[in-house]
Amino acid sequence: MAEGRLTRRGLLAGGVAAGVTALGRPASAAAGDATGEAGEPVVPFHGPRQAGIATEPQAHAVFVAFDLREDTGREGLGRMMRVLTDDARRLTQGRPALADTEPELASPPARLTVTFGFGPGLYAKAKIRSPIKPLPAFTIDKLEKRWSGGDLLVQICADDPLTVAHTLRMIVKDARSFATVRWTQRGFRRAAGTQPAGQTQRNVMGQLDGTANPVPGTPAFDLAVWRPDGATTLVVRRIKAEMETWDAADVVAKEFTIGRRLSTGAPLTGAREQDPPDFDAPGPNGFPIISEYAHIRRAHVGDPSLRILRRVYNYDEGITRQGHADSGLVFASYQADIQRQFVPIQRQLAEADLLNEWTTPIGSAVFAIPKGCGPEGWIGQEVLS
Amino acid sequence: MAEGRLTRRGLLAGGVAAGVTALGRPASAAAGDATGEAGEPVVPFHGPRQAGIATEPQAHAVFVAFDLREDTGREGLGRMMRVLTDDARRLTQGRPALADTEPELASPPARLTVTFGFGPGLYAKAKIRSPIKPLPAFTIDKLEKRWSGGDLLVQICADDPLTVAHTLRMIVKDARSFATVRWTQRGFRRAAGTQPAGQTQRNVMGQLDGTANPVPGTPAFDLAVWRPDGATTLVVRRIKAEMETWDAADVVAKEFTIGRRLSTGAPLTGAREQDPPDFDAPGPNGFPIISEYAHIRRAHVGDPSLRILRRVYNYDEGITRQGHADSGLVFASYQADIQRQFVPIQRQLAEADLLNEWTTPIGSAVFAIPKGCGPEGWIGQEVLS
Repeated sequence: MAEGRLTRRGLLAGGVAAGVTALGRPASAAAGDATGEAGEPVVPFHGPRQAGIATEPQAHAVFVAFDLREDTGREGLGRMMRVLTDDARRLTQGRPALADTEPELASPPARLTVTFGFGPGLYAKAKIRSPIKPLPAFTIDKLEKRWSGGDLLVQICADDPLTVAHTLRMIVKDARSFATVRWTQRGFRRAAGTQPAGQTQRNVMGQLDGTANPVPGTPAFDLAVWRPDGATTLVVRRIKAEMETWDAADVVAKEFTIGRRLSTGAPLTGAREQDPPDFDAPGPNGFPIISEYAHIRRAHVGDPSLRILRRVYNYDEGITRQGHADSGLVFASYQADIQRQFVPIQRQLAEADLLNEWTTPIGSAVFAIPKGCGPEGWIGQEVLS
Repeated sequence: MAEGRLTRRGLLAGGVAAGVTALGRPASAAAGDATGEAGEPVVPFHGPRQAGIATEPQAHAVFVAFDLREDTGREGLGRMMRVLTDDARRLTQGRPALADTEPELASPPARLTVTFGFGPGLYAKAKIRSPIKPLPAFTIDKLEKRWSGGDLLVQICADDPLTVAHTLRMIVKDARSFATVRWTQRGFRRAAGTQPAGQTQRNVMGQLDGTANPVPGTPAFDLAVWRPDGATTLVVRRIKAEMETWDAADVVAKEFTIGRRLSTGAPLTGAREQDPPDFDAPGPNGFPIISEYAHIRRAHVGDPSLRILRRVYNYDEGITRQGHADSGLVFASYQADIQRQFVPIQRQLAEADLLNEWTTPIGSAVFAIPKGCGPEGWIGQEVLS
């Protein structure tokens, strides 16, 4: 394969990025023995927990949801998950899928992760009691079927968009004897290297998004995200941003809505992004500085074990003839227990979050995320065998 | 702004990319005074030629075409281009647009370029003789209006997808008093840093795409791409890839079709990507090794001044319920003269390129690309004032 080999044209063409390769290796090192090195970072596939959750979010994602064919029972599901696990194991490690039609696109993996989730319908078809149930209806929802539900979910994330596109094709090919595609949602974050890993990113509305997230590697993270066996749950919601009216609001109104400064992400009562908001601090008129209806107050969770991990992507797709964007968030949250963690937060937001004026949930789906597996196992084995 | 400042969470979260920032600066350097540094690379906006052409292709692009409103005459066009130039000048340098509604998204620019093109309809509305004309019809075309034509074209490219999304919104806002959006086409290449700059990339079909491109900085490049005054022309064609049948072909058939090895990109008569194809070399059965109908023979141009610069992006958008991809190429080529350079190549391909079996042009548009401008000027000034 040609990846990583510096060609004559590469040496001639130069350009601003010619001096370095992925991970900042100097080009001189890359030129020596770079085959397979460029864009190489590999996320381990095997382990007690699935990858793609505690993994620092990659720049690109596609979420694909499938409807199982009526005749796909428990046994068929097991066969499907063996095939899917096998190809996910290969592709995430930079190797072609078993029947890869474009094997050259399997490398570099660019931190590829493939994460599997089971919707309530999968359990019904397998005649197994579902560990999750659909969300209650929220008053703010304007859900469309084309962005909602699904029996099987595959979350594909990588720092390279071509890697994501190739992986999606291979995964869909594996699944399609057993299932039809219900929806796909593509999303993006800042490109890898654009800002330091772990630093909060801005979303398409300009807000720093994810400031209050639990931090991977801390006990609070493990408590909020993982069940003792390594399983978790996923909520995927498509949140349309009403960019035209959002843009019509001025900075004061936007900051009042969020409860944070747009520039720094600091709470209105603080100076830095990570300063804890002071929800009691009164303003000059006696009312709290952070409004009763501000997004950060409504979304605030005191008990760390009740927090959720927001692993959110932006979308930006069509545009109307009048020049109005179709943008928003592919909101994805991981939490040990949807009813205990996600639902109360969402209820509080639905009740009285000022941000609701500028955001509309148009899709919603829930999935149980089975634990991880070892080299001989497959995802869902403990559920389906 | 928070970009480049390492937060407490950033330091805790770590992860594989934590040690470096864009351009491979060590994190220690970034932590010192990185404000505005991360993802910083800036492509100059001013110059005798527009940026985004000889610029090493960025990872993400959106092409947006506008229809001018009926009442937008030459004077209105001049006003529109002044406004657009002004915001392109700001945004490409990492500064907010004049009336930026999300100024925090203007940085980092991530090698942002904004390139303007004028379609035949713009000249008609300005009552100026057009330097370009629409392409002739090709037998292989199945053109759809929703991907074709347009009076004004803006090509927005950056290594970061959020930068592209924000720039698109600002550019569309500037233009929409004068024009409606006709189409947008989003595309991607390998993420920055995934492989060395200047190295040929694979497209969504798995082929190394652009091997025969002229090399920026060489006299052959300047001869093929630029007119003496710094202007050029752009052809944008949307090429749907028939991935299902392409995948059904085996490697031998695919390589026979292309005339190159899929693995290395070497011509079937050579060993390396850059080896010149030997179109006369006979195979064991007496026929040429590189078929009369192979893509590289049909696309081959001997005279360097007649070559075109392919600046091609992949697209991968919907997916059918049956799991069939909607993928292909946003083919963009720059050449000094469309009739002299692009049309003869396209004629040869349309006549008898084996690859036609797996690719279908579904969109087509041509644009004159005005020369660049200085700090006091605006793009199109020499045409419209």
